[in-house]
Amino acid sequence: MAKQRIVTLLTDFGRSGPYVAEMTGVIMSITPGATVVDITHDIPPGDILAGAFVLRQAFGYFPPDTVHCVVVDPTVGTDRRIMAARYAGQTIVFPDNGVIGLVERDYPLEQIVAIRNEQYFLESTTSATFHGRDIIAPVAAYLSGGLPMDRLGPAPGKFKLLDIPEPAEEPDGLIRGQIIYVDHFGNLISDVSAQLLHQVWGEPVGVVVFCAGNNIGVLKATYAFAAPGAPLSLINSMSLVEVAVNGGRACDILDAGVGAEVRLVRSR
Amino acid sequence: MAKQRIVTLLTDFGRSGPYVAEMTGVIMSITPGATVVDITHDIPPGDILAGAFVLRQAFGYFPPDTVHCVVVDPTVGTDRRIMAARYAGQTIVFPDNGVIGLVERDYPLEQIVAIRNEQYFLESTTSATFHGRDIIAPVAAYLSGGLPMDRLGPAPGKFKLLDIPEPAEEPDGLIRGQIIYVDHFGNLISDVSAQLLHQVWGEPVGVVVFCAGNNIGVLKATYAFAAPGAPLSLINSMSLVEVAVNGGRACDILDAGVGAEVRLVRSR
Amino acid sequence: MAKQRIVTLLTDFGRSGPYVAEMTGVIMSITPGATVVDITHDIPPGDILAGAFVLRQAFGYFPPDTVHCVVVDPTVGTDRRIMAARYAGQTIVFPDNGVIGLVERDYPLEQIVAIRNEQYFLESTTSATFHGRDIIAPVAAYLSGGLPMDRLGPAPGKFKLLDIPEPAEEPDGLIRGQIIYVDHFGNLISDVSAQLLHQVWGEPVGVVVFCAGNNIGVLKATYAFAAPGAPLSLINSMSLVEVAVNGGRACDILDAGVGAEVRLVRSR
Repeated sequence: MAKQRIVTLLTDFGRSGPYVAEMTGVIMSITPGATVVDITHDIPPGDILAGAFVLRQAFGYFPPDTVHCVVVDPTVGTDRRIMAARYAGQTIVFPDNGVIGLVERDYPLEQIVAIRNEQYFLESTTSATFHGRDIIAPVAAYLSGGLPMDRLGPAPGKFKLLDIPEPAEEPDGLIRGQIIYVDHFGNLISDVSAQLLHQVWGEPVGVVVFCAGNNIGVLKATYAFAAPGAPLSLINSMSLVEVAVNGGRACDILDAGVGAEVRLVRSR
Repeated sequence: MAKQRIVTLLTDFGRSGPYVAEMTGVIMSITPGATVVDITHDIPPGDILAGAFVLRQAFGYFPPDTVHCVVVDPTVGTDRRIMAARYAGQTIVFPDNGVIGLVERDYPLEQIVAIRNEQYFLESTTSATFHGRDIIAPVAAYLSGGLPMDRLGPAPGKFKLLDIPEPAEEPDGLIRGQIIYVDHFGNLISDVSAQLLHQVWGEPVGVVVFCAGNNIGVLKATYAFAAPGAPLSLINSMSLVEVAVNGGRACDILDAGVGAEVRLVRSR
Repeated sequence: MAKQRIVTLLTDFGRSGPYVAEMTGVIMSITPGATVVDITHDIPPGDILAGAFVLRQAFGYFPPDTVHCVVVDPTVGTDRRIMAARYAGQTIVFPDNGVIGLVERDYPLEQIVAIRNEQYFLESTTSATFHGRDIIAPVAAYLSGGLPMDRLGPAPGKFKLLDIPEPAEEPDGLIRGQIIYVDHFGNLISDVSAQLLHQVWGEPVGVVVFCAGNNIGVLKATYAFAAPGAPLSLINSMSLVEVAVNGGRACDILDAGVGAEVRLVRSR
């Protein structure tokens, strides 16, 4: 079988206009046979943290050599750079604005370059540039087709990460993190991972969760362990501590959202 | 040409988060070369009847050996089973909650199993399980790749169907059904099929339709046969009796929705 | 590598129902191995100008021999024709209602036929016909598979274009056009192209833009050249004159939308 060339798109463009199709057409024109997969185009406009979250979460399930295009780019038109980075055998092309921040926390970086070589850009006769279509899509297509990353530009001295702290054990023995995403069902998803809990406490028995000032009680195994309408917390399918309401929308019932503090205490 | 391996997704996840991409990535990782098709991800959360309707309607247009993943699953986390069934040469993987009900009415069942063999599940290190990603998607991918269905588990004694009655001729000579779907244009689609009309009455001439207490008049051939703004009924492109308003939204104008009674009377 | 067969879909169906999947399944059944790409399904219902705009804009980025299906069709059920046309090496199948109008302005027409040959339609046993699924999708699939266009029907005497005037230089030395699209970010996109400006004035220096009675000032190079919250105009990534607000929604701030007049004056 011919090699599978997968290129994904993750943007804040919505799906009503031509922008997504323009990127898709560019990729298919440069790399015939490429499979273009829409991760989502419904990131709230300019919401870097939401883009970082969905990217990190979807990333782990794609096959080796997948190339991901990320266009959540509120500073387009400034001189922010566009980067290509390889983590754990997959490649991401993205604006240097922190959107790579959550992948960077959880996967090993293998290579990163600041993209400069205009030979791989789309020729554009227009004054304004649509970087998603004119730089990110064609570069991703060439990478998917086998272009070595170092042809794109030099390694950067450093690159931008998220400006929120990593969750960690605090001197007072708590683990402190925050809500970083609210999903379609209103669940509040934090940046505290099962892995961190295990590092700090081994098996997380008797761990009590507080969110936005509310005592959510002991970490549960599944949604069904709380009464209907009652909040609960669990380690979700992303291996992250999540605050949910059995049959309801936790974000509304707890009046909490992205940025809300999450504290975990071991009650022994 | 290599065999075409098509896997479709039909869920209530929406398109803003990572869940759809996670399933897509799992399928492409297990069965390289699979083509993943989104049927829809906009089923109202937990609406089993809407999921059953869209599945039944899209099903008939896909090629033989297509595998469909259905994740409309309000009882995830309970012990409801996950099934794989083969109807008319295509395969469906779905939760045992009735969502198969409308396909079951119209297509011949060839084989069905209750999925138990964890060898084909995604390895998950998390406490909570996302059955769409961890069971339904990988099982569908293996089936698309040629896995015989009986490797997944035993035939079930029985399985769940919809809890609404099938439309039928009543002792008083009426045909009685109900509205089962309201489409994007506000059209009210019933479960009364052209096939049933033909069985009962032969050519459906002079058939008068009542919906939610309104006399809609005689079945028409197309939308253009009613005055603008007036309700009409016709046999739609799905071979189902539909109540529409020429140039308007029937659901609003008739104040009717899913569950509304539909009665058909032959007026000769 | 096997030849890539790309068929795109551009409709006003939304994504919640079965209609898009029905068309996709039909195409994949007729032409195995075809890649179906969703341009968008979120054209406002029946909005021919919006469909024409998104089609024209996406069109230019797809590879040769791509076949595009356009189903924005408020007059379905009347006797309007369905056409297939070849422009610049790609093919479009569309209802004869003007939706081809903006492609026609900018790309050379190579061949056009009025589709009549029912041999390439989907067999339908229903009284009502879903032309997108029963005619446009199968014809597009056959064309993608290599069917010569003249097998579909005869060349039409003429076909419908948009009923808005083309932008042009007026006797008073102005260029007059109009807003034809409002994008996801609220930007007002006109039909005045960079190409027209160059034809009339050479390098467009000192060109002042008026939109819906507002003086927007001199054409700028990028969004960042206006103060936050202030309107500006530029030649956008589509090579069209666009009126935007730095960090805001121009359509709301200027209370303008599709149809608003755009005038350009050279201030020398």
